Amino acid sequence: MNTFPIKIINFKNVRIGEVKEPGTQGVTVRWLISQKDGAPNFAMRIFEVEPSGFTPYHKHAWEHEVFILEGRGILVTGEKNFPLKKGDAVFVPPDENHQFKNDSNEKFVFICLIPIEKRP
Amino acid sequence: MNTFPIKIINFKNVRIGEVKEPGTQGVTVRWLISQKDGAPNFAMRIFEVEPSGFTPYHKHAWEHEVFILEGRGILVTGEKNFPLKKGDAVFVPPDENHQFKNDSNEKFVFICLIPIEKRP
Repeated sequence: MNTFPIKIINFKNVRIGEVKEPGTQGVTVRWLISQKDGAPNFAMRIFEVEPSGFTPYHKHAWEHEVFILEGRGILVTGEKNFPLKKGDAVFVPPDENHQFKNDSNEKFVFICLIPIEKRP
Repeated sequence: MNTFPIKIINFKNVRIGEVKEPGTQGVTVRWLISQKDGAPNFAMRIFEVEPSGFTPYHKHAWEHEVFILEGRGILVTGEKNFPLKKGDAVFVPPDENHQFKNDSNEKFVFICLIPIEKRP
């Protein structure tokens, strides 16, 4: 038997938090599905980036899987910049430098999934 | 060094396939991010369910993490049915019976992520 039930929640009803990591501007996050819900392998968040906002330029040992829901932006990487638009899926492998920037006048909104850290 | 590069692809440019699993009607799938892209932990697919279409009613040992992109539908489970609409996130734990049905006159479109099977 599962100890965690099916969860259904509209993203608008999820608590919104400001991303305060240094190098961030105008970004909020909502955790839609996480370890707290019993998710065994990966977590789903939704990010909203204001016009001229950006996530930190950084890299880390885990991957991102992203789907663009609204607006337009730029993925900055160590090698080049890529335009992003609604309906784009993005795979950022582990240890790749990356930053998501909103260079438009509209909100830039995307889902971003990360693996749940397994502590053996 | 990574052997896999950053991947960016619009879902419309991903090969579409009909889901032929028994108990399915009017469902297509596109694999946006998978093990073939170097994804180490989980895979992202997008499903489109035609009006009156449905995915199979079944259960399996892995979880689903879903985000509704367009339209309206119903999540059928072993206990009850839940209405689904755009912007809903859905966590279906492992070993839970589930089926996604389109009971509207519009396309019902959602992202569905699954863990990648690890063979030790």
